[in-house]
Amino acid sequence: MSLIENLNWRHAVKAYDPSKKVSQEDLNKILEAARLAPTSSGLQPFRVIVVENQELKEKMVQGALNPEVMKDSSHVLVFAAWDRYSDSKIDEVYDYHTDVRGLPRGRFGSYTDKLKEIYGAQTAEEHFSHTARQTYIALGLAMAQAAELKIDSTPAEGFSNEVVDEILGLKEMALRSVTLLYLGYRDEEKDYLAHMKKVRIPMEEFIIQK
Amino acid sequence: MSLIENLNWRHAVKAYDPSKKVSQEDLNKILEAARLAPTSSGLQPFRVIVVENQELKEKMVQGALNPEVMKDSSHVLVFAAWDRYSDSKIDEVYDYHTDVRGLPRGRFGSYTDKLKEIYGAQTAEEHFSHTARQTYIALGLAMAQAAELKIDSTPAEGFSNEVVDEILGLKEMALRSVTLLYLGYRDEEKDYLAHMKKVRIPMEEFIIQK
Repeated sequence: MSLIENLNWRHAVKAYDPSKKVSQEDLNKILEAARLAPTSSGLQPFRVIVVENQELKEKMVQGALNPEVMKDSSHVLVFAAWDRYSDSKIDEVYDYHTDVRGLPRGRFGSYTDKLKEIYGAQTAEEHFSHTARQTYIALGLAMAQAAELKIDSTPAEGFSNEVVDEILGLKEMALRSVTLLYLGYRDEEKDYLAHMKKVRIPMEEFIIQK
Repeated sequence: MSLIENLNWRHAVKAYDPSKKVSQEDLNKILEAARLAPTSSGLQPFRVIVVENQELKEKMVQGALNPEVMKDSSHVLVFAAWDRYSDSKIDEVYDYHTDVRGLPRGRFGSYTDKLKEIYGAQTAEEHFSHTARQTYIALGLAMAQAAELKIDSTPAEGFSNEVVDEILGLKEMALRSVTLLYLGYRDEEKDYLAHMKKVRIPMEEFIIQK
């Protein structure tokens, strides 16, 4: 199926069948789509925490808008962004890039110098505002990959960042939670959205031709 | 080809062949993928401005990091987010949703009341921080759709928001530019990235298993 067909197929599932689990093989493909997501300057300034453990999920729902959806999902992916940029993080990424490409370290030195200058003039909060945005690219591609596999997913911002950061120990990893993605298989009866038409604004309103 | 194959195929093209144009049919598919992007509460708080006019592109490059890339691309998509949420915008979207679904207006009233309460307590800057994030989901899906069609693309944040907003008259539409996406066909010789290996951090570093 094409991407457009897959995007038409999917919706934000509102009730999962807790007895159905996403296979490791399928999960790997979803994670791979997220890993391949393009990001600003290729820095990939986020990580994905994979939560399957039921006890952890039960703790993470504190303060969540739809606790049952999270609890009954097969897996919860936590998209967590770097809390800030730093010269050493930039060097680490670019040293890895040059190593993999068989290029001398410093090959992109003028570019990374510029990056360090730009980010060096910004606050940590400005950094996080930028790293958080990047996670949404990966979130979207993970949903598209799940749809390609006919796996249901629900993106979620309605949760307590404090609770999730604390439970997963994200602060210690210099990460901050941004979004969640629940994965699993819908409960056809309970998922009220499954029977509603997908709605998007008409194309002529969505685009502005210049 | 699968999404993963398409994501492996693509890269942020650094030089376009200005003689090659993306067809209207293909462009429509890329815009459709962006339109189908899921967004927070389904509000779709952004629009895509389609720029093909060369004169406009030449103006928009003022302050851009890679002016030649924009100028030589076939089309520039400008992802522009709502500058703020408002009760009337929320009502407009949900009235449309209920109308399309043949449901009575107000069917999601308790939900929209909650949304209005949440956004009512936030500043316009907080709103924009949130609407801007949503554009990245659509940006990612538009790139994936372009790749499916073997059309090259380059996401770009390195441009002057002030210049682009001014030239396109976005302020008057209560929109603010967030990202650009250049579309077209690579110039194989000039595009130095075309001959470099794609690099992503290893999966074992990208994910954190809990």
